[in-house]
Amino acid sequence: MEEVRLIEVKENILADNDKVAADLKKRLKKEKTFLLNLMSSPGSGKTTLILKTIKLLGKELRAGVIEADIDSMVDAGLLTAHGIKAVQLRTGGFCHVDATMTTRGLDALENSRDLDIVVLENVGNLVCPAEFDTGAIKNVMMLSVPEGDDKPLKYPLMFAECDVLLVSKTDYLQYADFNRELMRERVLKLNSRIQIFEVSAKTGAGMDAWLQWLKREYEKFIR
Amino acid sequence: MEEVRLIEVKENILADNDKVAADLKKRLKKEKTFLLNLMSSPGSGKTTLILKTIKLLGKELRAGVIEADIDSMVDAGLLTAHGIKAVQLRTGGFCHVDATMTTRGLDALENSRDLDIVVLENVGNLVCPAEFDTGAIKNVMMLSVPEGDDKPLKYPLMFAECDVLLVSKTDYLQYADFNRELMRERVLKLNSRIQIFEVSAKTGAGMDAWLQWLKREYEKFIR
Repeated sequence: MEEVRLIEVKENILADNDKVAADLKKRLKKEKTFLLNLMSSPGSGKTTLILKTIKLLGKELRAGVIEADIDSMVDAGLLTAHGIKAVQLRTGGFCHVDATMTTRGLDALENSRDLDIVVLENVGNLVCPAEFDTGAIKNVMMLSVPEGDDKPLKYPLMFAECDVLLVSKTDYLQYADFNRELMRERVLKLNSRIQIFEVSAKTGAGMDAWLQWLKREYEKFIR
Repeated sequence: MEEVRLIEVKENILADNDKVAADLKKRLKKEKTFLLNLMSSPGSGKTTLILKTIKLLGKELRAGVIEADIDSMVDAGLLTAHGIKAVQLRTGGFCHVDATMTTRGLDALENSRDLDIVVLENVGNLVCPAEFDTGAIKNVMMLSVPEGDDKPLKYPLMFAECDVLLVSKTDYLQYADFNRELMRERVLKLNSRIQIFEVSAKTGAGMDAWLQWLKREYEKFIR
């Protein structure tokens, strides 16, 4: 088993984050690397979704992952054990990932310019990550069914900022008190252009539509 | 139905939070008001747990609630509809509650000195709230079963800072891949003095032990 690379990162308090993010976007365009920033509450299933997505992509697109956590290397360890190229950023208490940390993560991914897609798994937090441009090409959030349909009311910025909402753990729909129509209505009120996909990484349900979106957006990006 | 009081709060960037928290603790001691700070990820079931707890306390202890959210008044609205005294703090994007906001919340609770227990429902966030003393007498966190047993590894500070861990939504244990022993081991490694209770506010399972703890600590506090 390949060893996991761990990178300790610190917030760049000097540089202008928007400037660093803009530079990273230019680099990604030049290198044709489609960077996705994936955000959600802790435990919404980000790592499982990433694992399933990359497995389903197969050899079609070469993918890598930048894992960010306050502590631990379990996520990058899991992905690496599945043969997926991954590095772990340890934020040391920090509640979000900024563009400087993202750039360091990309640098740490060996031969990153050969990758078609890189997923940045942000710190599990429905609040702070929404405020910082990581330099990613697209922002995707997850809301797991057990968290409840009222989350758009309470954490509006995250829903307003994202290009895609993945409603995850739909296999819990039969046990949970979750009103899909009400959730959808609340989300679209905050962000009428957001794409919503309902998925279960466990059963595979709904993964097709999400993968189609991903491939379509990648094609648009490299054109 | 009683109208819900909404208080817009801002971080106190001038005063020393620890000083404000210490002052609040003195006031609570004097007024014999046992303030609990309840923290967790979004959607772990904080409001449902509070509702169930206060209903079970019945007339034994007089309780009030300070709800904090980035936006919306749904939580205080729900509690008020159940006849529970509650105010809503709107942090306007802010990711945690500090001692100044808590003091404002307490001031807004009518006749707060007549209350035995006040619960502060912090912003749903497993990261930032752990760093700020709210002035509460005890800190309680929740981890819901669907979030997974690996959370102590990724968000260690929250587990290290709390007096009690409520493992919530245990009615999901039969569907979720959640190793209780492993979770417990990970938590106790971070904080050997933490009290762990497994509860389901939905079915009522495990609520007794949690209520016993609450009453016992209240008695100790007012002695």
